[in-house]
Amino acid sequence: MQTVHIDLGSRSYPILIGSGLLDQPSVLAQAIPARDVLVVTNGTVAPLYLAAVLRGLAGKRVASIALPDGERYKTLETVGRVFDVMVEQRLNRDACVVALGGGVVGDMAGFAAACYQRGVDYVQVPTTLLAQVDSSVGGKTGVNHPGGKNLIGAFHQPRAVISDTATLATLPMRELRAGLAEVIKYGLIDDLEFLGWIERNAQPLLALDPEALAHAVRRSCEIKARIVAADEREHGQRALLNLGHTFGHAIETATGYGQWLHGEAVAVGMVLATDLSRRLGWLAEGDVARVQALLERVGLPSRAPTIGADRALELMGMDKKVLAGRIRLVLLRKLGQGKVSGDYPAEALEATLRAHFEARAA
Amino acid sequence: MQTVHIDLGSRSYPILIGSGLLDQPSVLAQAIPARDVLVVTNGTVAPLYLAAVLRGLAGKRVASIALPDGERYKTLETVGRVFDVMVEQRLNRDACVVALGGGVVGDMAGFAAACYQRGVDYVQVPTTLLAQVDSSVGGKTGVNHPGGKNLIGAFHQPRAVISDTATLATLPMRELRAGLAEVIKYGLIDDLEFLGWIERNAQPLLALDPEALAHAVRRSCEIKARIVAADEREHGQRALLNLGHTFGHAIETATGYGQWLHGEAVAVGMVLATDLSRRLGWLAEGDVARVQALLERVGLPSRAPTIGADRALELMGMDKKVLAGRIRLVLLRKLGQGKVSGDYPAEALEATLRAHFEARAA
Repeated sequence: MQTVHIDLGSRSYPILIGSGLLDQPSVLAQAIPARDVLVVTNGTVAPLYLAAVLRGLAGKRVASIALPDGERYKTLETVGRVFDVMVEQRLNRDACVVALGGGVVGDMAGFAAACYQRGVDYVQVPTTLLAQVDSSVGGKTGVNHPGGKNLIGAFHQPRAVISDTATLATLPMRELRAGLAEVIKYGLIDDLEFLGWIERNAQPLLALDPEALAHAVRRSCEIKARIVAADEREHGQRALLNLGHTFGHAIETATGYGQWLHGEAVAVGMVLATDLSRRLGWLAEGDVARVQALLERVGLPSRAPTIGADRALELMGMDKKVLAGRIRLVLLRKLGQGKVSGDYPAEALEATLRAHFEARAA
Repeated sequence: MQTVHIDLGSRSYPILIGSGLLDQPSVLAQAIPARDVLVVTNGTVAPLYLAAVLRGLAGKRVASIALPDGERYKTLETVGRVFDVMVEQRLNRDACVVALGGGVVGDMAGFAAACYQRGVDYVQVPTTLLAQVDSSVGGKTGVNHPGGKNLIGAFHQPRAVISDTATLATLPMRELRAGLAEVIKYGLIDDLEFLGWIERNAQPLLALDPEALAHAVRRSCEIKARIVAADEREHGQRALLNLGHTFGHAIETATGYGQWLHGEAVAVGMVLATDLSRRLGWLAEGDVARVQALLERVGLPSRAPTIGADRALELMGMDKKVLAGRIRLVLLRKLGQGKVSGDYPAEALEATLRAHFEARAA
């Protein structure tokens, strides 16, 4: 087992990473001193891992709720069902919520924990690669609103994160690849050496090699931990973690949620951020090709859907008349060094959008 | 205008107190630098004070929403309507919410501000005495759940509180009296001299004398400010502010919400807390009579409804078998000095409940 610490003063917590952690009851028992526990999971994950988690919580008063699986259920109404169970179980402020599942479960369980009696503890037990390297760490919780993703939520740090990489064996390959997009993101914004490591280890990662997975999760969490510790509430540098996300958001919205996985849209978004950085003279042609090649090597899309440059701009929240500088984007000063910037020429952004979102002549 | 500061580091804020503050546009303008503002109010308060607030926000992009008036609408569903308007108005993280109304409006507007985009600013403009002396100060926000009051919420400090005591002129007398219960509470837990001042100024307060009101609001806020600054998230001494509330909660629930105003139930709850403190030898008979006399002088109830001692105990969240020490109560070490204690004999509590909640022989 490896441990990464998130240093946030009184809100600090460990991320425990290893293969088979859920089969070691002492891991859960030590992370959760509470006597009353509510496990929040979903209908897909419950049959796979709920029994192991319940064994790990033996001796406590434990209830569980399985939410419907999928981003479209990440709503205030679904969190309301979690509150209902918490009240039914008469949980008090000393209770602990366990989020067992992917990012959707973690976001909702964390939000429920943030709001129940104005805040109770929760522990993340992420079972997807995306959640293990990104969403379970850093305390962002919340739900979607019909008007936009994650518009309602809270910053509420977990008490611990338990990432059992063995759970990735049951993850559909497409979701594994989507998680790798976020792993690649960490290399791009912060660590060129890690980027090289991912390039050399794409095959072991896709083959679920335990050591490779543990390294990818650990290194991703280390980078995220440092960035979050420096800017917990995203007033500045934490935005680096959004590389590719603004472009990706336009893709997700234009194609309808569910068509593209979040990680897939982020992958293409990173290509666009890379392309824009090249237009600013920060990257070379070869850098862009290198990023595309890596995405393709792990089976991620690297080409955008033809949603149109104007539509993309609108979905990125920009008004064409006041285009430049309106939205801060994460760009790359060089490979391995992200930069949050609102200071780019409108023409460069437009050229990037045209090149990628418009239909190309054959 | 008088100002009380709440000292919470980066979350510090001023409470501005005075008669006619809403008619001075500079007061609102200075407290709210944001360009985008959402005023949350209710159908009773809007016709009275919304126009003045809108004048004070002239030059900004302002929207408003009037929620239905009443504690029974303090739900997650109602807050959902506030979120809808925030999204419709495309408010971003720099927006500011203004809570114009009593405690229910303040709790919901504050909770909406806490959760929208994981937290935007809000300013409290309380228009009831209860809200001016208590609920608008200290950052407790939230909604009720069918299973209990304030079960869902967040700690989210306002950016400022603007208490215009002239708004109390339109408050029903019964609600003014209910607000005075909380004012008396501050004297009982923290300031014997203030208690004496209230006794001497009961008539000016009920007659809405501006100086008397301003002093009562200011002194109440000063006491609350000190207690909240020392224990923002109620891990300890902040519980002092709940004098009479556990007993009062039993009354509110047993009689159905709406029968007794919160302040009325708290008034009787304070009599019970006083009676229990006397049984512990901390107060004299005369102290109990003094508290009852003051409550009666301002027109508050001082006698409990006959809901039965067993039912009261159950509603206080206690199991009879493990009665003593299960629930911490706020008691009075002497008049003007509250004490949070879970260490009282079961028999003393039972005697208090019997004496007050059982039908008495004539």
